[in-house]
Amino acid sequence: MNSLKTLTLLGSTGSIGRQTLDVVRHAEGCLKIHALGAGKNVRLMEEQARLFRPAVAVMMDETAARELRERLKDLPIKVDQGMEGIINSVTAEEVDTVVTALSGRVGLEPTLEAIKAGKTIALANKETLVAGGDLVMSSAQAMNCKILPVDSEHSAIFQCLEENPETIERIILTASGGPFFGWSKERLESVTLENALRHPNWEMGAKITIDSSTMMNKGLEVIEAHHLFNVAYDGIEVLIHPQSVVHSMVEYYDGSVLAQLGRPDMRLPIQYALSYPTRWKNPFERLDLRGKTLTFHEPDFEAFPALALAYQAGRRGGTLPAAMNAANEVAVSAFLQRKVSYLGIIDIVGEVCAEHKVLDSMDLDSILDADSWARHRAEELILT
Amino acid sequence: MNSLKTLTLLGSTGSIGRQTLDVVRHAEGCLKIHALGAGKNVRLMEEQARLFRPAVAVMMDETAARELRERLKDLPIKVDQGMEGIINSVTAEEVDTVVTALSGRVGLEPTLEAIKAGKTIALANKETLVAGGDLVMSSAQAMNCKILPVDSEHSAIFQCLEENPETIERIILTASGGPFFGWSKERLESVTLENALRHPNWEMGAKITIDSSTMMNKGLEVIEAHHLFNVAYDGIEVLIHPQSVVHSMVEYYDGSVLAQLGRPDMRLPIQYALSYPTRWKNPFERLDLRGKTLTFHEPDFEAFPALALAYQAGRRGGTLPAAMNAANEVAVSAFLQRKVSYLGIIDIVGEVCAEHKVLDSMDLDSILDADSWARHRAEELILT
Repeated sequence: MNSLKTLTLLGSTGSIGRQTLDVVRHAEGCLKIHALGAGKNVRLMEEQARLFRPAVAVMMDETAARELRERLKDLPIKVDQGMEGIINSVTAEEVDTVVTALSGRVGLEPTLEAIKAGKTIALANKETLVAGGDLVMSSAQAMNCKILPVDSEHSAIFQCLEENPETIERIILTASGGPFFGWSKERLESVTLENALRHPNWEMGAKITIDSSTMMNKGLEVIEAHHLFNVAYDGIEVLIHPQSVVHSMVEYYDGSVLAQLGRPDMRLPIQYALSYPTRWKNPFERLDLRGKTLTFHEPDFEAFPALALAYQAGRRGGTLPAAMNAANEVAVSAFLQRKVSYLGIIDIVGEVCAEHKVLDSMDLDSILDADSWARHRAEELILT
Repeated sequence: MNSLKTLTLLGSTGSIGRQTLDVVRHAEGCLKIHALGAGKNVRLMEEQARLFRPAVAVMMDETAARELRERLKDLPIKVDQGMEGIINSVTAEEVDTVVTALSGRVGLEPTLEAIKAGKTIALANKETLVAGGDLVMSSAQAMNCKILPVDSEHSAIFQCLEENPETIERIILTASGGPFFGWSKERLESVTLENALRHPNWEMGAKITIDSSTMMNKGLEVIEAHHLFNVAYDGIEVLIHPQSVVHSMVEYYDGSVLAQLGRPDMRLPIQYALSYPTRWKNPFERLDLRGKTLTFHEPDFEAFPALALAYQAGRRGGTLPAAMNAANEVAVSAFLQRKVSYLGIIDIVGEVCAEHKVLDSMDLDSILDADSWARHRAEELILT
């Protein structure tokens, strides 16, 4: 029925990676794994490799790669390592689609290399577009590569798009509001790591869970949407929708709104990015709206300054979004290690953005320089 | 920007007809009126003819036509009459699209004639598809005619359709539930004409307002959806949504649900049927979801037996839907004249359906015979 697609999955041991493998398992005969890539979780990578039998398994961490090589020596699986190994795994000739389910800016280079090699990208790494959106989108256009969104909001928008993009009036990105929806700035001062890691609707990795609670995740998604759908920032609105049933909407210039709804199950947008342009049947639980109540609220830009910060960074453009994203990665990591307070995260990001000398050149070096500078500066601010 | 479309608008003095003319007024340079057709409202027809200057104005009623001819004698507008006049107005060579905004089964013949003449149909007359769905759809297919829905629910579904119809799992038709949502059968015994004419969300003609309150309107829409989208009755669900913001939904077989939302303004689906396959800008008020609450509920088939009756009639097929529709038209008309009680409407329809000898032949004569028989029988039941 469907032609077989061959995948490289980067970030296979993370939350999206594991769910992608569940989609592969259900899409029998439609998907094949060429390579799995991960950071340093050797135990899970071994398990995944034994189950899915990729040709290649890559660990970013060298020590982890050595250990995996030892563990998999009974199988004909090539174990590779580092950024070079990752890049070889995405550019390999047999690969059709690369799923970028890495967390953070580290996804940028392999994504660019995959685009250069003409691969379709199932993009589950929004930091790539935040840091290098102009570069990535222009490369994709030059190579005529498809970039298919995996984020549930962007998948929703993608599913609501019609043929004529000029008829779009605005994009409405829904946001659960996270665990602190409705909290005042004062009350947010008391947030602990344990509070922040408890997301009401979605089970996700630690970094994105914290980003959801600060609304920085939604800010990053605004920038991601700007690049993916080529819509101006004035045409992107954020709407709080605590039930996470409506995943996002597109309003057309005749006043008609199309929305995509579903259960909060990331396997749906993952599968859509892999099945596109068709859909595949699956046995996943269905949305049942009977007895459901859906509510919608304006976001609180004052209590959640990350959202305004991201709009500003996106509008300014150049290297500012890359710097903002880098500072956020460092600050969230410090919060996870209890080195900064909850409100300290966005204070640090704001300070780094204010100090950053924005460059308008959008080559990879400028982006990586801005990223390095911002990481360094954020670390300094954390220590003081 | 857009090519000019020439319309014949049947039912111009009714609620949908008046709103269609408002759409025409806003879509300057995109739409032109060839003919207006109506029943007997001479005063309003004169006003519309003076404003829109059609080539032809048709009154179904002969006396009304005579009076209109007199009133319009200063203008170069041909005034025509009766079903023959209506049919000539839809088959005229210059006409691209026929808007069928008549109320009731009377829309069937002009729709069939318009299809024979190769016109696009903007269908605002669901009784046409209920009575003659198989005949109309097969004629349209044979002539390669488009039938574009104007009903807000069917327009919503149409906007949510993707290229591969086989990937549809089910259609979810939303229903406001009408003014008596949540009422028990016992409480419904007390309903007066004044109660039933008060719809919570939509301003519509009297017949459809009563049909909405009994849920027969939703039943007719289920049959309409079956024909328009070629979906089996098991794949069509009705979901009560009292706020009328989500106009309907399509669930695909991967579990993803697409929905169309908008304000309860019939000009939106009317305009979409006329602008399709593109959209036109308009200054109509936009949907604002901030602060909104949307709820969804299972329909009460016991208190509102019209819905189950319509599913049964649709599933049985043949001439039964035509008979059901005819009996309903007569019973609603009698209720509007205070000749039957509120619960009497569906009792009569149910009795006529139970007595009807269903024919499977779907030619126009069989349909019209079933219609006549059912009208006659319903009238007998009203008198006893």
